[in-house]
Amino acid sequence: MSSFAFNIHYRDDSSSARLGTITTPHGSIETPNFIFCATKASIKGIAPDQMKDCGTSIILSNTYHLMLQPGADLVEKMGGLHDFMGWDGPMLTDSGGFQIFSLGYGSVANEIKGRGLQNRDKSVLKITEEGAEFKSYVDGRKFFLTPEESIKIQQKLGADLIVQLDECTPFHVDKSYTAKSMEMSKRWGDRSLAELKRSDNKRQVMYGIIQGGVYEDLRKESCDYIREQDFFGTAVGGSLGSSKEQMYEVVSYCTPYLHPDRPVHLLGIGGFRDIFAGVRLGMDTFDCVSPTRLARHGWALKKGAFKERINIRNSQFKESNDPVDESCACPCCTKFTTAYIRHLFTAGELLGMQLLSLHNVFTMNRLMSEIRLALKQNNLKELEKEWCVA
Amino acid sequence: MSSFAFNIHYRDDSSSARLGTITTPHGSIETPNFIFCATKASIKGIAPDQMKDCGTSIILSNTYHLMLQPGADLVEKMGGLHDFMGWDGPMLTDSGGFQIFSLGYGSVANEIKGRGLQNRDKSVLKITEEGAEFKSYVDGRKFFLTPEESIKIQQKLGADLIVQLDECTPFHVDKSYTAKSMEMSKRWGDRSLAELKRSDNKRQVMYGIIQGGVYEDLRKESCDYIREQDFFGTAVGGSLGSSKEQMYEVVSYCTPYLHPDRPVHLLGIGGFRDIFAGVRLGMDTFDCVSPTRLARHGWALKKGAFKERINIRNSQFKESNDPVDESCACPCCTKFTTAYIRHLFTAGELLGMQLLSLHNVFTMNRLMSEIRLALKQNNLKELEKEWCVA
Repeated sequence: MSSFAFNIHYRDDSSSARLGTITTPHGSIETPNFIFCATKASIKGIAPDQMKDCGTSIILSNTYHLMLQPGADLVEKMGGLHDFMGWDGPMLTDSGGFQIFSLGYGSVANEIKGRGLQNRDKSVLKITEEGAEFKSYVDGRKFFLTPEESIKIQQKLGADLIVQLDECTPFHVDKSYTAKSMEMSKRWGDRSLAELKRSDNKRQVMYGIIQGGVYEDLRKESCDYIREQDFFGTAVGGSLGSSKEQMYEVVSYCTPYLHPDRPVHLLGIGGFRDIFAGVRLGMDTFDCVSPTRLARHGWALKKGAFKERINIRNSQFKESNDPVDESCACPCCTKFTTAYIRHLFTAGELLGMQLLSLHNVFTMNRLMSEIRLALKQNNLKELEKEWCVA
Repeated sequence: MSSFAFNIHYRDDSSSARLGTITTPHGSIETPNFIFCATKASIKGIAPDQMKDCGTSIILSNTYHLMLQPGADLVEKMGGLHDFMGWDGPMLTDSGGFQIFSLGYGSVANEIKGRGLQNRDKSVLKITEEGAEFKSYVDGRKFFLTPEESIKIQQKLGADLIVQLDECTPFHVDKSYTAKSMEMSKRWGDRSLAELKRSDNKRQVMYGIIQGGVYEDLRKESCDYIREQDFFGTAVGGSLGSSKEQMYEVVSYCTPYLHPDRPVHLLGIGGFRDIFAGVRLGMDTFDCVSPTRLARHGWALKKGAFKERINIRNSQFKESNDPVDESCACPCCTKFTTAYIRHLFTAGELLGMQLLSLHNVFTMNRLMSEIRLALKQNNLKELEKEWCVA
């Protein structure tokens, strides 16, 4: 019997939202849920037990970063990612494709999200049917990543959930490029699945990735392919447009054609409002670097705050005896005042980043937990009004 | 009855070492012990509960840094340092003198320890009998620190143990300057004590500071003064020479003339060997920024290691499945391999600094705890051989 499963307990009447459980050899994840980014085998500034204390179910790590540093062979030698980084819960690795292509096309998220201009640097040297050649940002060494190689690396890393290699199609290309790229990603999906089957230890399952850019027909075609292959889960990737509205629309192109019984992951999305929208469109999991990145820059995520967050350096907090979020039960809000956290940031103290990161992680887990409860109680709309005011 | 006490339980036969307990309104400290530096109201990268988990009894914070940022008035408004930073154990603040004079004379520790050349910059604008005028490194504002002002600030900060203002005499001055400076520090000691008495809430007691540079007769004269005034504790400060040997010698000038029943603090010293020497010379507490500073630069303190530490970035640790210190029970050594900690440092991950800081804090607390046990069991020399190999 497989150690993996996805069980759907409840389907919403008025949307595609659902409640489920993803089971893995390292434990289970209640969905909808959020996956935190341990980019280089570490959540920035937070230890695994602290992540657990903040309610975290699952984290992901990036194949691209790890293959360059410290290298997949080393991680394998150290017992795999779980042992190496001391995380014993469910884990996902991506394929490496996102970073290779998005770094190659300019800054990572800007391009995918349709912001900024195309600025292809020299880190992607060549993209062919076979795979992608690129230069390491660590030491300039050349690497050639094929679907087979990506899966081999992910097998060495040993995460529970792995992802097919795809070409992460950028925003500033035309429909014909997007179509060809999506077709190639389908073939790379076949090759990724075949590679996993060649040496499947039954400790990993794979997500296929839906591409097709902002084009409804291409998204449908990509969904049709992914649905018909033997993937465990579905991920929605690639360019989702240049605005929140377009993103919701592009995801909605996919919703009707997703495999109804498989977990669906929306790649790289972490805003409160976006998550509510995604949940309604049938997305089960989300990931984004934003919770910890925002924290390191002094932004606290906050339920009901304008634009979903507050700037902790703001002078209005100078003498604030209140916690960052009065309604929050995280280690930062239960023990420290906003004035103190502000002091840590103005004085350049490392502890500020750590405490605010704990708060932001806790807040994302709280958001997801409240969404699951609201789905059960049929009041998602009311909950969204509490979390998202502008 | 006073909430403060110092009880000596045991005196060593063959040295001036002793075992004691310092009692404060925020708890007690077994001595010998180490005081960790929360320079700007924060141990760099470590939360108070983590400090406790690593065996910490007492921390200190720096008046100089706090008066500039966020300011003593704000800290007082927030309930004092204990509430502000969430540390409910014993705490010490220094007078501000050390940083003012040492920053004024060049780099902080180099000058005091007789390393480097004199390089007096413009941050100390004027030193007079009245006090010291200096410029803020934060925003260039002018401040004038007198003994009375230092005590008023320390009263606002609210630490249990406070320190008189002194002129921290540098190394590269002649005996006549050192003598005059020491005399002025005596008068500043009187003024500091008088200021505390003016509004003593019985929640703070004061340490006097022994100056006198590297000169035996001046050290004796300073000791005589400090011993005869109504200080709770004694601190040995100022220039201790340019080598470890000279430092031990200068401290040994003081030992015979210290008040026998008061706790003695050796300022700014944190090496294993130096602590063993200091304990034998009758020092009860020590402080130094080194444990957390070394950690942030990738150095792990280690019992029995050459020069007392290892460089975690060393390639010999690339595939090391062992903890940083196999004999250590800290959160870093019990959960992570040296290979992982090395990876965090080579990849520039914040978590590396945090985990190694926990290890170094734990190691200092372990050192002090083993020293206390060895004193009881009369085998300090054997213990020193285990900790200090070169």
